[in-house]
Amino acid sequence: MPRVQLPDGTNVDAPADATARTVAAGIGEGLARAALGARVAGELVDADRPLAEAAPAGAEEPLELGIVTAPRSDKKGRSKWRDDAHEKDALFLLRHSAAHVMAEAILRLHPDAELAYGPPLETGFYYDLALETPISSDDFEKIEASMREIAEEDRPFTRIGLPVADGRIKLEAEGNKYKLDNADRAADQGANVLSWYITGEAGSGAFEDLCQGPHVDRTGRLGAFKITAVSQSHWHGDTNSDRFQRVYGTAFFTEADLADHLEKLEEAKQRDHRVIGKRLGLFAIDEEVGGGLVLWKPDGAVIRQELQTFIGEHLARQGYSQVFTPHIGKLGLYRTSGHFPYYADSQFPPLIDRETIGKLADEGCSCADLSAKLSAGDVDGYLLKPMNCPHHIRIYADGKHSHRDLPIRLAEFGTVYRWEQSGELGGMTRVRGFTQDDAHLFVTPEQLGAEVRGCIDLVKAVFETLGMADYRVRVGLRDPDSSKFVGDPEDWDLAERACREAASSLGVAFSEEPGEAAFYGPKIDFVVRDVIGREWQLGTVQVDYQLPQRFGLRYTGADNAEHVPVMIHRAPFGSMERFVGCLIEHFGGRFPLWLAPHQVRVLPVSEKFDGYAGQICEELKAAGLRASVDSRSGRVGAKIASAQAQEVPYMLVVGGKDEAAGTVSVRTLTADLGAVPRASFLARVIRERDERALPA
Amino acid sequence: MPRVQLPDGTNVDAPADATARTVAAGIGEGLARAALGARVAGELVDADRPLAEAAPAGAEEPLELGIVTAPRSDKKGRSKWRDDAHEKDALFLLRHSAAHVMAEAILRLHPDAELAYGPPLETGFYYDLALETPISSDDFEKIEASMREIAEEDRPFTRIGLPVADGRIKLEAEGNKYKLDNADRAADQGANVLSWYITGEAGSGAFEDLCQGPHVDRTGRLGAFKITAVSQSHWHGDTNSDRFQRVYGTAFFTEADLADHLEKLEEAKQRDHRVIGKRLGLFAIDEEVGGGLVLWKPDGAVIRQELQTFIGEHLARQGYSQVFTPHIGKLGLYRTSGHFPYYADSQFPPLIDRETIGKLADEGCSCADLSAKLSAGDVDGYLLKPMNCPHHIRIYADGKHSHRDLPIRLAEFGTVYRWEQSGELGGMTRVRGFTQDDAHLFVTPEQLGAEVRGCIDLVKAVFETLGMADYRVRVGLRDPDSSKFVGDPEDWDLAERACREAASSLGVAFSEEPGEAAFYGPKIDFVVRDVIGREWQLGTVQVDYQLPQRFGLRYTGADNAEHVPVMIHRAPFGSMERFVGCLIEHFGGRFPLWLAPHQVRVLPVSEKFDGYAGQICEELKAAGLRASVDSRSGRVGAKIASAQAQEVPYMLVVGGKDEAAGTVSVRTLTADLGAVPRASFLARVIRERDERALPA
Repeated sequence: MPRVQLPDGTNVDAPADATARTVAAGIGEGLARAALGARVAGELVDADRPLAEAAPAGAEEPLELGIVTAPRSDKKGRSKWRDDAHEKDALFLLRHSAAHVMAEAILRLHPDAELAYGPPLETGFYYDLALETPISSDDFEKIEASMREIAEEDRPFTRIGLPVADGRIKLEAEGNKYKLDNADRAADQGANVLSWYITGEAGSGAFEDLCQGPHVDRTGRLGAFKITAVSQSHWHGDTNSDRFQRVYGTAFFTEADLADHLEKLEEAKQRDHRVIGKRLGLFAIDEEVGGGLVLWKPDGAVIRQELQTFIGEHLARQGYSQVFTPHIGKLGLYRTSGHFPYYADSQFPPLIDRETIGKLADEGCSCADLSAKLSAGDVDGYLLKPMNCPHHIRIYADGKHSHRDLPIRLAEFGTVYRWEQSGELGGMTRVRGFTQDDAHLFVTPEQLGAEVRGCIDLVKAVFETLGMADYRVRVGLRDPDSSKFVGDPEDWDLAERACREAASSLGVAFSEEPGEAAFYGPKIDFVVRDVIGREWQLGTVQVDYQLPQRFGLRYTGADNAEHVPVMIHRAPFGSMERFVGCLIEHFGGRFPLWLAPHQVRVLPVSEKFDGYAGQICEELKAAGLRASVDSRSGRVGAKIASAQAQEVPYMLVVGGKDEAAGTVSVRTLTADLGAVPRASFLARVIRERDERALPA
Repeated sequence: MPRVQLPDGTNVDAPADATARTVAAGIGEGLARAALGARVAGELVDADRPLAEAAPAGAEEPLELGIVTAPRSDKKGRSKWRDDAHEKDALFLLRHSAAHVMAEAILRLHPDAELAYGPPLETGFYYDLALETPISSDDFEKIEASMREIAEEDRPFTRIGLPVADGRIKLEAEGNKYKLDNADRAADQGANVLSWYITGEAGSGAFEDLCQGPHVDRTGRLGAFKITAVSQSHWHGDTNSDRFQRVYGTAFFTEADLADHLEKLEEAKQRDHRVIGKRLGLFAIDEEVGGGLVLWKPDGAVIRQELQTFIGEHLARQGYSQVFTPHIGKLGLYRTSGHFPYYADSQFPPLIDRETIGKLADEGCSCADLSAKLSAGDVDGYLLKPMNCPHHIRIYADGKHSHRDLPIRLAEFGTVYRWEQSGELGGMTRVRGFTQDDAHLFVTPEQLGAEVRGCIDLVKAVFETLGMADYRVRVGLRDPDSSKFVGDPEDWDLAERACREAASSLGVAFSEEPGEAAFYGPKIDFVVRDVIGREWQLGTVQVDYQLPQRFGLRYTGADNAEHVPVMIHRAPFGSMERFVGCLIEHFGGRFPLWLAPHQVRVLPVSEKFDGYAGQICEELKAAGLRASVDSRSGRVGAKIASAQAQEVPYMLVVGGKDEAAGTVSVRTLTADLGAVPRASFLARVIRERDERALPA
């Protein structure tokens, strides 16, 4: 007789075989009908599975129960959600089930296909399957039609569970080696029971699939879905293992939701920073220089430089000091910090002195020994710096400090290098070299709260100037059960309190994420939503008690004794590369005036007005504006089109009337503002630039 | 009967045994008496050696003859020089002779010393000798006294020459293995005759030394000299060979000259950028980070940042585009450029992929093989960039260019890394990582002249703003005899003409230096003289036809055909590290206001005036000035001393009278300016900063 607690706090003693749906029925028939699944003591489960069985091992009563309902829709047919968690859970259930429906549809078309693995994803689902016949995008419609039939059949998803040994016998009989391997992996991780989901009734001979679930209750829940892509994959990502076809799809509760999603995808494609970056000549990635290494071309460098100046102004106001440090450091520095050899896989390999290799050669060392020494960190040399903190720490360490000198805030646009597998590289957002808008603050424990607050105020100010006011904050806390987090629990308490208070003072949504702290201390991450609703993890503020200890940092307190400072790591943008990539997509290449690489283009209607155009251009340049004249021969329409293609925010068409009246005919990328006196236009653009105004 | 041409152009037929002195005697007895030595057909020789024998092999008649005379001195006893060449030649002769006199003096004190090698230097001379008894600075006075005796004896320097075979017999008899080795090395390089210089008459049993000469005529020429140091050295610098003591000295014609020199040395010591840099906390070099890697501390970073802004303004005016590029590049990039593996010794070792080392290990490769592969450049990986050009070239290569787009001027404060032996590192001027104020211009051959001129105008403007108006220019040209210079002679002619014309247009001293070109093209180097007369090689402009070829760069000409652009490398400061090191010494740590890390310090006479001091400080900060208040308790005298120690250009003492009158009492590092209204002071410092005025 499980005792269950409903979201309103009331407790219910449910029968032993109670399911989420039967409990829901006690509240109302509508709720029971709407139930897709449930959260039982935090775990997402089937609506029709007995609660006592579905609850996670060791969960205490009363079991918290939340029903995951099918969404209602608004007048335009869009799903209405209670909150983000509701949307996430409902779509997880739906897409997991859609993956099964797709697999069944593919098996109807290709009975020889052998299924391997089919999970839901954040924006859809896929299924990996072994099949000789290649599936192409020409087949997607047929698969979708077959899926539609299955949905219309409105069959239930029925779960059966077997003890592992019995389950293996069943799997061996079925003869699918991938499923058998999956089962063995589950058993290795402690599973006692193997489960299948049958699309239909148990024993009906319908489609069934080894699967942990959970699923929605019936195929009829599938509202709108689409096969989106097919690619090649391998068993557990191992390129030496069997090759699969991975078929991707997505699913929603309504056609309107699906249409919104596809539109967003199309929009995202239009805004892809790699495409815009190439079209506007902002940056290049060149295999001859190296994958994941960004060459900032002149127009991209303008954007970066403006952002650096902007951050620099904030830094000066907040009492930061700029420093410059080299891009390499001796390995010992990273042994002390703990970054080497423990994180060696995410670093470029060390630079080994020629003398060292020569010495090893003299000693008869083999490359295998060298390789082992490298892994063990047992070799001399330099590391391309994977972060700036050790260098800033050594600057702090060069000199004595009193508590009166603290906080010391050291800032640097420091370029760091980390190793990413080449398959993971992409544009400016997944790179091997990036420039952090980094700073490290050395503070007393008493100053910690105010300084963390100062850091997040800076991050906030930066995002708001850029029109990225839609963000949430994640506070990463330690997992008290884990030994991954080192240091004194009292320090952790103080630091977590500082982070929690600072985050809650922002007045935006914030979540606490136990176990998400860095190993050296808690952190605050900013997750920004761009204009098309995608989330980007950008700014970060982290508290650190460990590195100051490891490096033996000290200051003299008011008590004349030596103390260890606390360190704050913080980067509002995170990395200039990633942030500019995000900005390109956020603005779709149409930057605010202050960031636009080309701010004003003067377009004489004929060469007779080149002189007047030149005068205006000089006036603009004298005010520090990035202006130029398009004095090529040709129609003014062509010149406008060319300036538009470069996303120049202001185009000034000038002809005889303008010259006579001392005006310019102003066009923006979205409007024709007509003739304006030169002086008024100049005042307008200067104001717009200096205010760092957003595009209208 | 050699025919001799005098400096005034007259030709003289001299007797067969004529010497410079006998020819001089024909002009005047005074000239003959003053003759220390002579230039015969460009070669510096003894005044008393027959011209026919002394002239370089193959010299054509008439032999140009210039007498190197002893200098006259002015009223203060300082030597007066005809020109730099005169000073250089006379001091060379004097110091070479002083080295012999010192060796003789040491032999008088230590008859067991064995002489090895004793050359003149730019600022003195040394002698390497093998001697068990250590010579210490306590012995310098005794050696000097003995040298004085020898000078007073006024003995002649007499040269004897012997054919190599006879010379070896004499050396073997003398039993000095070092001199014998020197003789063999001379013979290996083609010498037919070995020469000795005897301090006294030949056969007199006086001090004699195997030596190529030349020397002054008599020991009495020695005016003023000083033993300055003793250090350890080795035979031909080989640490595995015999150990010597190296005794350093310097010599001048007058005591006043020596005093000037010693004062300059003391001044240089006071100005040593390592000492000032440490005292003012401008930078640190930290063995834990790595030798030769500069950490720019906050106050040093202010100076660098101001210089970068200053250069940035010039770049914007001259139509440069800024770029940012990574600090590593694939080895292939440097194979194409020719920098790897040919210059591998001056580079950090390559970063070798972990995968590559793993693969080599699998293949059973030894470290010796790896070492060989590294030397041969036959391995995959990345190089820490030793220069920025290949990256800028790849930016140029990313896109099509028409002749109308050229010149393209790409600028970057790009940090590069080069390997220097640790013994060669020192402060900021000999480092392993440095930031070039670099740019590369891609131009058509027609634009070359104007663009080279633009580059040197920039360098000139930069130096003049910094009060370094005393500079000369060296134009490095190809050595037509050498195969070191690659490319089309016509391109070289054009580029050399452009450099020569640009350099001569500057209106400052310039010299042409055949053989000093880079392998890829001619160059212009700026040699700046600092306030205490030392020369620094700083800015450089180089023309390059080779790299654009090697990288296959193209532009479409007016003729619609593809052409190869010419490239100009240029860096006005050379490197930020070296330049700031030079600036620290030039200004002795007292920077112009615009560069001073701390510009104004407000010093309240007691805590009663902290409020007024704070107001003034805020006013200054609002104007962008780097200002602070010293509100520590204590006497104002102590606060002044502390600001002076930090070289703060303006100290504002504020007390009751100031607060009542709205004034500040202004002190500079050299004067007390008394009470000044707040507004006037503010206007004064803003103007001084914005004009980048030099210190008064």
